Amino acid sequence: MKLRSKDLISAADLEKREVKAILEEAEHMLGTVRKGRQLKMLKGKILATLFFEPSTRTRLSFESAMTRLGGSVIGFSGTEGTSVRKGETLQDTVRNVENYADGIAMRHPLEGSARLAAQSVKIPVINGGDGANQHPTQALLDLFTIKQEKDLRNTRVALCGDLKYGRTVHSLMYLLPMFGTEISIVSPEVLGMPEHIMDEVEGRYGTRPEKQASLKEAVKWADVLYVTRIQRERFPDPNEYERVAGSYVVDSRLLSGAKKDMVILHPLPRVDEIKPEVDSTPYAKYFDQTFYGVVVRMALLNMLMGGGRHG
Amino acid sequence: MKLRSKDLISAADLEKREVKAILEEAEHMLGTVRKGRQLKMLKGKILATLFFEPSTRTRLSFESAMTRLGGSVIGFSGTEGTSVRKGETLQDTVRNVENYADGIAMRHPLEGSARLAAQSVKIPVINGGDGANQHPTQALLDLFTIKQEKDLRNTRVALCGDLKYGRTVHSLMYLLPMFGTEISIVSPEVLGMPEHIMDEVEGRYGTRPEKQASLKEAVKWADVLYVTRIQRERFPDPNEYERVAGSYVVDSRLLSGAKKDMVILHPLPRVDEIKPEVDSTPYAKYFDQTFYGVVVRMALLNMLMGGGRHG
Amino acid sequence: MKLRSKDLISAADLEKREVKAILEEAEHMLGTVRKGRQLKMLKGKILATLFFEPSTRTRLSFESAMTRLGGSVIGFSGTEGTSVRKGETLQDTVRNVENYADGIAMRHPLEGSARLAAQSVKIPVINGGDGANQHPTQALLDLFTIKQEKDLRNTRVALCGDLKYGRTVHSLMYLLPMFGTEISIVSPEVLGMPEHIMDEVEGRYGTRPEKQASLKEAVKWADVLYVTRIQRERFPDPNEYERVAGSYVVDSRLLSGAKKDMVILHPLPRVDEIKPEVDSTPYAKYFDQTFYGVVVRMALLNMLMGGGRHG
Repeated sequence: MKLRSKDLISAADLEKREVKAILEEAEHMLGTVRKGRQLKMLKGKILATLFFEPSTRTRLSFESAMTRLGGSVIGFSGTEGTSVRKGETLQDTVRNVENYADGIAMRHPLEGSARLAAQSVKIPVINGGDGANQHPTQALLDLFTIKQEKDLRNTRVALCGDLKYGRTVHSLMYLLPMFGTEISIVSPEVLGMPEHIMDEVEGRYGTRPEKQASLKEAVKWADVLYVTRIQRERFPDPNEYERVAGSYVVDSRLLSGAKKDMVILHPLPRVDEIKPEVDSTPYAKYFDQTFYGVVVRMALLNMLMGGGRHG
Repeated sequence: MKLRSKDLISAADLEKREVKAILEEAEHMLGTVRKGRQLKMLKGKILATLFFEPSTRTRLSFESAMTRLGGSVIGFSGTEGTSVRKGETLQDTVRNVENYADGIAMRHPLEGSARLAAQSVKIPVINGGDGANQHPTQALLDLFTIKQEKDLRNTRVALCGDLKYGRTVHSLMYLLPMFGTEISIVSPEVLGMPEHIMDEVEGRYGTRPEKQASLKEAVKWADVLYVTRIQRERFPDPNEYERVAGSYVVDSRLLSGAKKDMVILHPLPRVDEIKPEVDSTPYAKYFDQTFYGVVVRMALLNMLMGGGRHG
Repeated sequence: MKLRSKDLISAADLEKREVKAILEEAEHMLGTVRKGRQLKMLKGKILATLFFEPSTRTRLSFESAMTRLGGSVIGFSGTEGTSVRKGETLQDTVRNVENYADGIAMRHPLEGSARLAAQSVKIPVINGGDGANQHPTQALLDLFTIKQEKDLRNTRVALCGDLKYGRTVHSLMYLLPMFGTEISIVSPEVLGMPEHIMDEVEGRYGTRPEKQASLKEAVKWADVLYVTRIQRERFPDPNEYERVAGSYVVDSRLLSGAKKDMVILHPLPRVDEIKPEVDSTPYAKYFDQTFYGVVVRMALLNMLMGGGRHG
């Protein structure tokens, strides 16, 4: 299936049938990767990875996905060596890159930058994160991971930690209810889910995600525990940070209250919020997530850059 | 055709028949790229992009060109992570790289560095800019762009802006008269074309490029307006900069005096010297230039690294 | 032959028959590279080059080797743009990279980091240098170079310069005696070979490497002069550095005392310790070393990542 847009900028732009098509394509990619098949769909195509803000994980994931489809990658990480430093506008930069590549995967510190870039060029642009705004490929890979582990319908997903600045959890708020997934949320008060997102989700889907009283309660309730990192920088008072972060740590003791088949996801990097002791439990699926990230990006690259589909 | 030198260091080294051969090869590459053909001329070959001074545009353009020819790229951008920081000489660095790659495209802050590198190794070296000295692939792509838009013979090219430090305009001063192109120049007094270049061009071709009284006059005269960036750093006095730069801005009003089929070129990045309103006019060809840059570099890489020619 | 370990972390881990197998595979690779054959052994495979500490030479050598085997490369150089900066542990980083790539070549400032990484993932990890600890591919390429120039048996190798911090000379202390190569050492007193290595080598092979009285004596004695860089940073007193470094310089005068067929090796980068005048003498083999480095790494990549062997 062809997506309606030439780009992927925000999860909120996607219709349910598009999300389903992406998940199906990713399922197909997963099969070929597991069989060790060398793919050639994007042979001769070039992806430009423009990371105005550095990110190892997302950049390497895109590069791995492009390579596994037989394509090539050029790009930069950090603006150290870019004409941005000479005062070039984002539009000019991407208009130039359009002449070097067949598609762009970009991360940029400013909200709205990915959409601006997409409007400036004819080649597909995939948003790999624009400030605190959107990170749609992460949200799609989260969705794909949940689907691998559970039925989406009637599964209970608890979103935990920093719900204010976490762009992935914002995207999941729109994507999960599409498939009948139940959401509840739990976070420190200062890092709560923005009310405008709560309102919009309620408006779209008719129900307002429930708030859990504590992480402990969330663990009891959840089929999927989606943990995010609470960043020190968000707190003016370091003592306040220590107190709050300390009560959002996932360890063996906390997990004693969990359903047997609960799974823990995390967009990574994780710092102290999931103890290493959890890694070897059957709950831990956060490294599998990274693997699913590659196949989801393979699916997206093929759907947006594949000659056979948009030729 | 084989070039006489194994390297491309300076536009001034090229004979007319060599320049013509490069333009013809680029024309051929343009055809294959437009047909979307996947080329394999440099399959199995490795280009090292050694950017001792960062540059997104030139580096990505070389990498795109090499990739489109079926070759591979290794390299670095910035000396942050290089043995240069440990005190290694340029000669030693390129002698090592000679063992990793089949060709080198390099940018270096020091004038003469590309020639020194070329003399130190047996593999081809392409100069991607050495200080304020030379940037021959940019000059060749400018020439190619002009040829795409106009006949070179009897076309009037006005070089505008910073003619003192702009290495591309220096190269064009040698290349354009080869083909019977008329040049005139216009610049702030402190950024004038160096007299030794004026003299040398006069010596070679028998005519001295005319100076235009103002940008406005140049626009009236020109078939091609070649605009360069006036950099703030060149002016000790910021007020002086503001005054001068302000009189070298291309906008709709200025263009009302232009011939209908005039075209505007710019080596990019552009900052304020061409207003965004110009981008959507038929005059604007500066983004096409970037595209032609890839095919010209494909031509050069193939002529210098192609097994069939120098095997 | 398959190596016993999935990884290459330390030269000391290798049995003699493994070292021999690597040298033979490298010999085979050398033949194919010299014939200009394009290899496909690692087509479809991805190598991640994780250089937490930058290094042009080693990184580009690995990337060249992987490319020459038909494989692809993703990675980073410097931690500027990595999640390490967000506080991610090395284990987490490599567990993620395991999902993007089929093998890892890494350099890290901390001793033991490569082994830790290797234990955290199922894919092969090749140590490209961990602090002052090990740099096994450099040691193997040194060995391979000596074998190209001399018989290993009964050849006399003098290790000179900084023997305290030089990780390559440490590895050579274990590798050379395996093949009946004689070692002697000469260094400034403060940069002497650690006693525990001297003891271990004596314990393993029954002989203790002889100390030469001066570089001059070492040159007279040696078939192979292995020179290392004496770094200014190692000396608290700059005058002391000047005095010591000055007496460890290889120049034409010193070489007048050498055997006619002596060869000089150096892990590079070289700064002042070998004068440029030596480069054009038949003694100088340090740039050939870099070339052999690529074929040795090709051998290792193929032995560790080749589907046919570890599939």
